[in-house]
Amino acid sequence: MPANKVKKKFIAVIGGSQCTLQEAKLAEEVGRELARQGAILVCGGLGGVMEAACKGAQAEGGMTIGVLPSDIRSSANPYVQIPIVTGMGYARNVIVVKSAQAVIEIGGAYGTLTEIGHALQSGMPVIGLNTWTLSRNGQVDTAIVLAQNPEEAVRKAMVLTTT
Amino acid sequence: MPANKVKKKFIAVIGGSQCTLQEAKLAEEVGRELARQGAILVCGGLGGVMEAACKGAQAEGGMTIGVLPSDIRSSANPYVQIPIVTGMGYARNVIVVKSAQAVIEIGGAYGTLTEIGHALQSGMPVIGLNTWTLSRNGQVDTAIVLAQNPEEAVRKAMVLTTT
Amino acid sequence: MPANKVKKKFIAVIGGSQCTLQEAKLAEEVGRELARQGAILVCGGLGGVMEAACKGAQAEGGMTIGVLPSDIRSSANPYVQIPIVTGMGYARNVIVVKSAQAVIEIGGAYGTLTEIGHALQSGMPVIGLNTWTLSRNGQVDTAIVLAQNPEEAVRKAMVLTTT
Amino acid sequence: MPANKVKKKFIAVIGGSQCTLQEAKLAEEVGRELARQGAILVCGGLGGVMEAACKGAQAEGGMTIGVLPSDIRSSANPYVQIPIVTGMGYARNVIVVKSAQAVIEIGGAYGTLTEIGHALQSGMPVIGLNTWTLSRNGQVDTAIVLAQNPEEAVRKAMVLTTT
Repeated sequence: MPANKVKKKFIAVIGGSQCTLQEAKLAEEVGRELARQGAILVCGGLGGVMEAACKGAQAEGGMTIGVLPSDIRSSANPYVQIPIVTGMGYARNVIVVKSAQAVIEIGGAYGTLTEIGHALQSGMPVIGLNTWTLSRNGQVDTAIVLAQNPEEAVRKAMVLTTT
Repeated sequence: MPANKVKKKFIAVIGGSQCTLQEAKLAEEVGRELARQGAILVCGGLGGVMEAACKGAQAEGGMTIGVLPSDIRSSANPYVQIPIVTGMGYARNVIVVKSAQAVIEIGGAYGTLTEIGHALQSGMPVIGLNTWTLSRNGQVDTAIVLAQNPEEAVRKAMVLTTT
Repeated sequence: MPANKVKKKFIAVIGGSQCTLQEAKLAEEVGRELARQGAILVCGGLGGVMEAACKGAQAEGGMTIGVLPSDIRSSANPYVQIPIVTGMGYARNVIVVKSAQAVIEIGGAYGTLTEIGHALQSGMPVIGLNTWTLSRNGQVDTAIVLAQNPEEAVRKAMVLTTT
Repeated sequence: MPANKVKKKFIAVIGGSQCTLQEAKLAEEVGRELARQGAILVCGGLGGVMEAACKGAQAEGGMTIGVLPSDIRSSANPYVQIPIVTGMGYARNVIVVKSAQAVIEIGGAYGTLTEIGHALQSGMPVIGLNTWTLSRNGQVDTAIVLAQNPEEAVRKAMVLTTT
């Protein structure tokens, strides 16, 4: 039987390559919870939020994919099991998003904005932990689904995944 | 003498491929003003804000570059003089931004967010007309330079251009 | 211990999305042999040579990665376990190559030429089964390492992998 | 009237960033001839064949576009008038090809192979001056149109351009 009939869910975890300790803690717990629920973690493969999430996923036996901006395989954080080497710089952000079926955003670097934009544009669910609030003309955009903690973020992501 | 010693400024105009009449009017006037000041307009090459800006620039004898997402040359709006055909979908957004020295954002589609993110991440000035407001933890991010009208937007873009 | 300390080798299998039965047979056997030797198969994720290689790898319990040109996850052949969704068209060819440490070419569509070029340019070993011969000014370029059969191709690829 | 109703032809000139003096001479003459015939030159924006072609085109008043691999605007050779800044590394090769309507290849670096592949795959005419010969199973692929000199290369490119 073809392997991809047994559908694993691919969830992206997005955030800065530099982050606060609190963000790292949230990311690691998101990674752990994704692994426990059988999801495959997709990220940008570098440090900060990405590394913490991969570390958490791996600790629970989960699989981790890192879509790297440079063309240097070893630029991946040590918890990336599947490095995808693009050499395309920040153009790789769109691949991180498209390779997932839901996106969990932690914190809010500017690169994260590009990924929120790509996800919302293609109708992919974005779950935010401590992330950007977007508004226009005084009205808050409610497209980002807020979560209060890692467990809630993963639960919502698993439910909202696109096909 | 090498041509690029005579420095023309490249300014990107960004916004939805669908837009309100008011946004189209703003975009056309931005395009006109850019041409009057000798800047070269870079955009995503499609309709809406992009088309209106190109139309304005061309009316004043300016040059227009459209970085297209599809691999179909004729998908460019009729006012694009230099179509750059990428076939890379929304990954082309990063090229629109990087090929410019300042970005003027009009309105606020989700694709625009990706371009704001790419620009701010690389330290490029972003001038906003009617665009997104970004905030975190209740604090508004002030990286986007606001302008009240097309003339002010172009003036600020011309002054703030990076090299 | 970080997972990527246990180094799996990533080998790309490249060839047309349409192919002869003989090429498909070669590709399937290459996939089987890669899996037996513990390598992870990277390919463009579509039909023809790519599908046959993935089918072979999966039959032996190997892991398969498909770097897709479109933004449609379900465009992957049914033996792709890890679909990487780029939406970048043929620009994704460079990612297939860079994500591997050696490339096995089977047959010779024009798209394959782009991948041979990217690989040789970056100093990555290319092993050819039934593939292009390149020459300039009457002199054959010997950069492509020839193999007579799938087993030899995989053996050479495993030995020549870059880090 | 929309500007792009007045159709200028876009022709790519492709070749190594390092080249022989003879190749540089051929490239410069190709650039001159393209400008004389009113075509717009597209290239990868760097040195060698690309710089010589741009220099020739500019000497005759032609327009030159350079699609750069890095994200550094000033990496363009001094004869590039329109730098397109991709930051995508060699993935930009596909943009050079797609933004043209015919390709003239001079000499034969490995990067050139990627561009020949992209062009032939999409049915775009490739005119070769001193370039690769491709063969399979002892049979030469005749898809590359050979030219004996710059004037013949440009004449053939102008006639064969796709729409």
